[in-house]
Amino acid sequence: MTPRQQAHAARAASRQLARLPAAVRVAALRRIADALLARRDEILAANARDVADGDVAVQAGAMTPALAARLKLSDAKLTTLSAGIHAIADAPEPLGRPLRRTELAAGLELTETTWPLGVLLVIVEARPDAVPQIAALALRSGNGLLLKGGREASRSNRVLHQIIAEALAPQIPPTAIALLETREAVADLLELDDVIDLVIPRGSSSLVRYIQENTRIPVLGHAEGICHVYLDEAADLKKASRIVIDAKTDYPAACNAMETLLVHVSLIDAVTPILDALNASGVALFGGPRATTAWGMAPAPSLHHEYGDMACTVELVDDLHAAIAHIHQFGSGHTESIVTEHEETARAFLGAVDSACVFHNASTRFADGYRFGLGAEVGISTARIHARGPVGVDGLLTSRWLLRGDGDIAADFQSGARQFTHRRRPLTTHD
Amino acid sequence: MTPRQQAHAARAASRQLARLPAAVRVAALRRIADALLARRDEILAANARDVADGDVAVQAGAMTPALAARLKLSDAKLTTLSAGIHAIADAPEPLGRPLRRTELAAGLELTETTWPLGVLLVIVEARPDAVPQIAALALRSGNGLLLKGGREASRSNRVLHQIIAEALAPQIPPTAIALLETREAVADLLELDDVIDLVIPRGSSSLVRYIQENTRIPVLGHAEGICHVYLDEAADLKKASRIVIDAKTDYPAACNAMETLLVHVSLIDAVTPILDALNASGVALFGGPRATTAWGMAPAPSLHHEYGDMACTVELVDDLHAAIAHIHQFGSGHTESIVTEHEETARAFLGAVDSACVFHNASTRFADGYRFGLGAEVGISTARIHARGPVGVDGLLTSRWLLRGDGDIAADFQSGARQFTHRRRPLTTHD
Repeated sequence: MTPRQQAHAARAASRQLARLPAAVRVAALRRIADALLARRDEILAANARDVADGDVAVQAGAMTPALAARLKLSDAKLTTLSAGIHAIADAPEPLGRPLRRTELAAGLELTETTWPLGVLLVIVEARPDAVPQIAALALRSGNGLLLKGGREASRSNRVLHQIIAEALAPQIPPTAIALLETREAVADLLELDDVIDLVIPRGSSSLVRYIQENTRIPVLGHAEGICHVYLDEAADLKKASRIVIDAKTDYPAACNAMETLLVHVSLIDAVTPILDALNASGVALFGGPRATTAWGMAPAPSLHHEYGDMACTVELVDDLHAAIAHIHQFGSGHTESIVTEHEETARAFLGAVDSACVFHNASTRFADGYRFGLGAEVGISTARIHARGPVGVDGLLTSRWLLRGDGDIAADFQSGARQFTHRRRPLTTHD
Repeated sequence: MTPRQQAHAARAASRQLARLPAAVRVAALRRIADALLARRDEILAANARDVADGDVAVQAGAMTPALAARLKLSDAKLTTLSAGIHAIADAPEPLGRPLRRTELAAGLELTETTWPLGVLLVIVEARPDAVPQIAALALRSGNGLLLKGGREASRSNRVLHQIIAEALAPQIPPTAIALLETREAVADLLELDDVIDLVIPRGSSSLVRYIQENTRIPVLGHAEGICHVYLDEAADLKKASRIVIDAKTDYPAACNAMETLLVHVSLIDAVTPILDALNASGVALFGGPRATTAWGMAPAPSLHHEYGDMACTVELVDDLHAAIAHIHQFGSGHTESIVTEHEETARAFLGAVDSACVFHNASTRFADGYRFGLGAEVGISTARIHARGPVGVDGLLTSRWLLRGDGDIAADFQSGARQFTHRRRPLTTHD
């Protein structure tokens, strides 16, 4: 099949999926979850060969150790993965959920209900565990999936995809979830903005940026997470210290880790123990222009910089407005947090900062689908259309407007023979 | 200002708008609505000059009469326009509306609330009445607006924009609503996918297609409305006749007008009165391959054809599945309707057809924001992300996730010292 044929086949499969009873999709999910345990020896054997090749590549300097580490599956990982897919199966049915109901006129009833987006193109770097996870999310939400796994994990991916394909049969067409093997296939698919509805890159910032720059298809994700913590003059310094240390050091490579610490100028002396604590935790501090002068720090490479590591930028600001202006000018619209005991200042910050996530007295690390209670996470979006912030299964849905009448025509309303009532109806069960 | 500077200024203005009390935006709306009446002489005088130029252009064959007709404003139009803007002012406040509330853990409260999309680029052909209407929608929803009016209406647009600019002062920056005068400015703005969030073309299919093909910015709208009515074997032929005549003749140039009539093969004789009625109404009938053979109609130029006129395609299909397959293959995903008295067949059609609007025993002409009870309509989207079908003010919104804590850190949850509760909270008033 050509990439276009594959995409069309995925769309046709999605339409079939959306029509099947939820129980069929759920049963396929449970078969995948069970097979991940029953066939673990086979999976781990294939994975061991990918990992061995990865180790050779690391020694030759052709792969980073971080990437190689993500390749490795284990008994424990497969158990978690299997439980996660059972949880996706247990979650409420996402399709056909009513979003809005309106009586347009007597006997003319409108319902907007959820429906699959259509065809997803997901591109994963390394991480073979993402393959069954994403397949499960697509299946649950009735979407066709074109999945490009990392070449480094090709043996693992092939076994995992085989398990998925077997679990789909016989009711779900195998074209519902296709595994792509080559970069060329991806380049071709990125052209198909008339057939593919959403691209989800799961990997490095450079992957996300490459995808964003090379397709007209909407991209769900974020290329950067330049998150700020602002210590207000009314900050409780104990809370500030806990939050700053957590936001930077809990997982410094995460997109929701703090990259810039903004400090109200009145705290120029009081903040010293927090800066010392960061230092003591192994965090290298770089300064904005004012911090460099005040504390003699090495200058930050830029005020718009994501370290993704045990390092951050520190800068002094005159007040709340300067902090917000700094965030708007240099941030990436991901997650920002204010530390203050002053309720009005907190309210002003939460009311004004134009980012996906805006927090008060909480670590930026909470910006995450699981922590937000969304269940399985598709990704975190810094785009402003469709979905913003942590995205769960809802981000893989669109809607349809269903209207039920009894021979109703528009001309009767134009002539005045009939009137619209536009009465909102309560949302009840599935439709 | 360069186009980029204009877009950045609109973003800054949007951020200011979002922070202002709703009453300030509402007051500006009422000033616009009132000025449309108070300054009607000035508006109509400018418009008369545009209309006169338009008439000359029509005589020279440089403008279609349809386009020239849309140029003309009148006392009555200004009165309706003014009332419409008061209605937008009366509508519930769209910003800060809670969409989801969750207690993540004791004392850690998450709320997702509505927020402006940011910067809209709206491109209007002719229609000077669209200028205050779209400005009002943008203002209500806190969005910055870059508005390109049709060159044919440039004098009318300038007066209308002047009125809007005066109504914004002094609390709302004038850069919130900018009027663009040249095509070159639009071409430059279409490049700015990092600053502009959504493009809304209001005009012909060819305008929409041009925009879609020339920008990476998401486009809200539809290039085509190839709507189907399917007469099932269990159709009530009286209802069928009413619906078919309404769907085709009520306003044949509308995007929600019927373009293709699919007829169950069992109705090959029974449908004759309906085809005759269409003919008698002045509708030219073109056939698909089977209809051409059955009835000797002239063949349709293509089964994927939008006449936008008193003409339509007719085709015979063997059953429901063939009708759905035809719609999926040749439709544009806009609006389709089934006419049947058989509840199960209706349910199967509504459950399977992958279009924005899917109707049972109702005219396709109901697919419209006003008729759906959405209030002011931004457009009808056949895209699958962000918004689908008729789009109201909600389509101009995104959201933010606000989290309120008291020194909460993620490490406490990882260590097991604290547990997530993820308790859903009722949605109450504004936040």
